[in-house]
Amino acid sequence: MFRSEHEFVRWVRGLAGRPSGRVRLGIGDDAALVEETAGQDLILTTDMTIEEVHFRCDLHPPRAVGHRALARSLSDIAAMGGAPRYALVSLALSRRTKRAWLEGFWRGFAALAKRFGVSLIGGDTALVAGRTLIDVMVAGEVSSGKALLRSGARPGDQIFVSGELGLSSLGLRLLKSRRRGRSSGEAAAVRSHLYPEPRCALGRYLSERRLVSALIDLSDGLSTDLARLCEASGVGACVWGDRIPRPRLDASQKSLDWALHGGEDYQLLFTVPPRQVPRIPDHFGRLPLSRIGEIKRRRGVLLAGTDGRFEPLNPGGWDCFRK
Amino acid sequence: MFRSEHEFVRWVRGLAGRPSGRVRLGIGDDAALVEETAGQDLILTTDMTIEEVHFRCDLHPPRAVGHRALARSLSDIAAMGGAPRYALVSLALSRRTKRAWLEGFWRGFAALAKRFGVSLIGGDTALVAGRTLIDVMVAGEVSSGKALLRSGARPGDQIFVSGELGLSSLGLRLLKSRRRGRSSGEAAAVRSHLYPEPRCALGRYLSERRLVSALIDLSDGLSTDLARLCEASGVGACVWGDRIPRPRLDASQKSLDWALHGGEDYQLLFTVPPRQVPRIPDHFGRLPLSRIGEIKRRRGVLLAGTDGRFEPLNPGGWDCFRK
Repeated sequence: MFRSEHEFVRWVRGLAGRPSGRVRLGIGDDAALVEETAGQDLILTTDMTIEEVHFRCDLHPPRAVGHRALARSLSDIAAMGGAPRYALVSLALSRRTKRAWLEGFWRGFAALAKRFGVSLIGGDTALVAGRTLIDVMVAGEVSSGKALLRSGARPGDQIFVSGELGLSSLGLRLLKSRRRGRSSGEAAAVRSHLYPEPRCALGRYLSERRLVSALIDLSDGLSTDLARLCEASGVGACVWGDRIPRPRLDASQKSLDWALHGGEDYQLLFTVPPRQVPRIPDHFGRLPLSRIGEIKRRRGVLLAGTDGRFEPLNPGGWDCFRK
Repeated sequence: MFRSEHEFVRWVRGLAGRPSGRVRLGIGDDAALVEETAGQDLILTTDMTIEEVHFRCDLHPPRAVGHRALARSLSDIAAMGGAPRYALVSLALSRRTKRAWLEGFWRGFAALAKRFGVSLIGGDTALVAGRTLIDVMVAGEVSSGKALLRSGARPGDQIFVSGELGLSSLGLRLLKSRRRGRSSGEAAAVRSHLYPEPRCALGRYLSERRLVSALIDLSDGLSTDLARLCEASGVGACVWGDRIPRPRLDASQKSLDWALHGGEDYQLLFTVPPRQVPRIPDHFGRLPLSRIGEIKRRRGVLLAGTDGRFEPLNPGGWDCFRK
């Protein structure tokens, strides 16, 4: 139908036409942004979580499904440098769903909502013949003019990421292997897959101090999301393979593949103008911040190997339209 | 799992806890309401449209599916007396979907959005193995303190509805019959099923003039939605069967059944304090407004027949949890 999500989004954006005066950002960024009059802009975002696409009942406990369904949208708010406020949840529940599952789901959802100061204020519910689908809409706020977009990166800006990349992919593989007796590092990977932490505090820190030129959250994998940021900014990038922070449990080439292409880490990737680089700390709380590359004028993303050679880094992350 | 949507909503509301200070209205009304500082309150609502539940590909053209998916949420905004502004659309598309279907869908969606001044500003997309599901979130505005709730009806208030009830049910039955050569009345019924008109202008008129004590949109049928309004207001009601405006195509008992229990008319039902009744016009534009009953102190809804007898009017409309 469409060859990629990118093509689909471009098509819908064409149909939607120019958004009205108060819409600062419509289709195509992490979230939409609407100017309000009282010093705060409104951020709106929505994300689906689908059985057999985003979770499997035999791998993901219901509490983790509730947590992850909300975390996806909170991460979009983090990617704008905003604070989440309200959530609406649409639940299309499989008729097979047991009340215990639903209770677990809400426990996971409510615990994360409470920790991030988010009020559940509405939604919709239906029972369906097929699989369960959850759609979570979150409204948030950001100080007027301080929202962080994908589109501000300039040649020479340095590329940073928070945390370790590929950890969620590793966690998912460990879950699928069903091996018992995990090391503490393995347990941490599983936990980060089941209960990812949206980086809202880091996003707000970067936006309030105006330290970054562009920002995106890593939901679909570094190779895919960095390409989106570059496309929106009209630039290219070079990333240094050996600088990409990744779990050291597996020294093989695989861990680099996961770090480059694995999704659902929900870390932040941001670009920093050279003069601001000294102001970026090594850690934000306990979360490491790593410089992994540089924005280039020439389009396309290159990966630099330890041997000094460059190769193209093609988007290999999640894309629902890709075969 | 749950016996009714009502029971489910009560359960979720208990879990969600008391919403934070600025939330004027959380789970359980037509939409959520959040106080903003600039003289306008924010309205948020979300509604799912599901293949084989809300539409069938052999009956509903894609343009009608797009129209109806947005109309559901616009009607919720109408039910608060607000003006819709922004929409986000989550599309879980069946892998069988053809591009032509999607184009028709967006044409229907975009035409209605344009007419109501709604900007499409974001969403999410996925391809799924099962049936198509569309979730539409709409954000709207209402002047501070002027939102119309379900909860304000008082004994003695008169009950009004707009338009004709049961028209959408009649239209659906005509569509299913696949009979050719429809009369103009039949064609109008089919059109009102495929392309229902959200009553936003009427909702705003009633809210700006403070004419009504409570209001709800008729999405799930008069018997179900009036019971919801009464429950929220802590009152009962009596409706006069012969006053209920309905299509005169079929004089049988069936047309009364459809008017009482048929859903998807998206007309407004509102209650008017006695001293305001003279200020309610017979028509709003070309839309008739009919007085059909009265709010009573005693709980429960009664239907008065032409023989002067009363019988209980039990909710017979749509409830996803009902067997």
